Amino acid sequence: MSKAASFAESWLNHRLITLKLLGQIKDEHLSYRPWEKALTLQELALHIFTSANFFINTVKAGAISPRQEEPIVKTAEELRALAHELTEKSRTTLSSLPDETFTALVDMTQLIGKNVPGEAVLQLMRDHEIHHKGQLFTYVRSVGVETVPPFTKL
Amino acid sequence: MSKAASFAESWLNHRLITLKLLGQIKDEHLSYRPWEKALTLQELALHIFTSANFFINTVKAGAISPRQEEPIVKTAEELRALAHELTEKSRTTLSSLPDETFTALVDMTQLIGKNVPGEAVLQLMRDHEIHHKGQLFTYVRSVGVETVPPFTKL
Repeated sequence: MSKAASFAESWLNHRLITLKLLGQIKDEHLSYRPWEKALTLQELALHIFTSANFFINTVKAGAISPRQEEPIVKTAEELRALAHELTEKSRTTLSSLPDETFTALVDMTQLIGKNVPGEAVLQLMRDHEIHHKGQLFTYVRSVGVETVPPFTKL
Repeated sequence: MSKAASFAESWLNHRLITLKLLGQIKDEHLSYRPWEKALTLQELALHIFTSANFFINTVKAGAISPRQEEPIVKTAEELRALAHELTEKSRTTLSSLPDETFTALVDMTQLIGKNVPGEAVLQLMRDHEIHHKGQLFTYVRSVGVETVPPFTKL
């Protein structure tokens, strides 16, 4: 198995849960936020998806890549469609990464002040998703969803 | 660097943030919960620490180990002291794991229905901590803490 395929599998164990959580929300939940300056549920979810693409494109390019502007959606259905579309983008680009990308240095000075191997950027991306997905669990429970999946696919 | 030392470093990047978050809370925050059946802040924090020890002991033993009963604390200071004590326990046991433990199969049938390499159990432990730490960020913000650290040490 290529390094990319192995990493993609390990990341998808979490992404599939993120998508499942979004499967349970309704239009009126999109603007929920737990405290006054928090990201809304919609913003938090989209931050996960656009950040993943940002990190993956950065690894592919070997340097910080432009971030996609945060999209805005009007319905839960639209959010789910966008989530699937952005997941496919992530998966496709990720799968195209040759093994060498994992050890090649990525210029991350703008973001963290140093160059790090591609593998470290991808781990940061995966950790970032688990972190915000954890928050999304609390959001989804707080808006009244009663049954949530385990935090990861096993 | 041994596999254990390398993994410990990668895990501590998150544990140090968990400890920093707890550095900001006050006694009256211990019982905060965001929705009615949620873990309280105290329970969520202690769940992170006792689970880490459970996973690490399980890897060391090669099979599911008994879980420590969830402790109860009365003050934020007591929580912080316990957090440091349990972190030291995790760090010490983790550091003692020989490289072979990472590839040796661990009997996880009781929990996930299969045997998996020690490394996979440790990754699950690390992911579990990042997940709940994400939730802890939302808790800590919701009780009014204004400045929080980045989600990981870089």
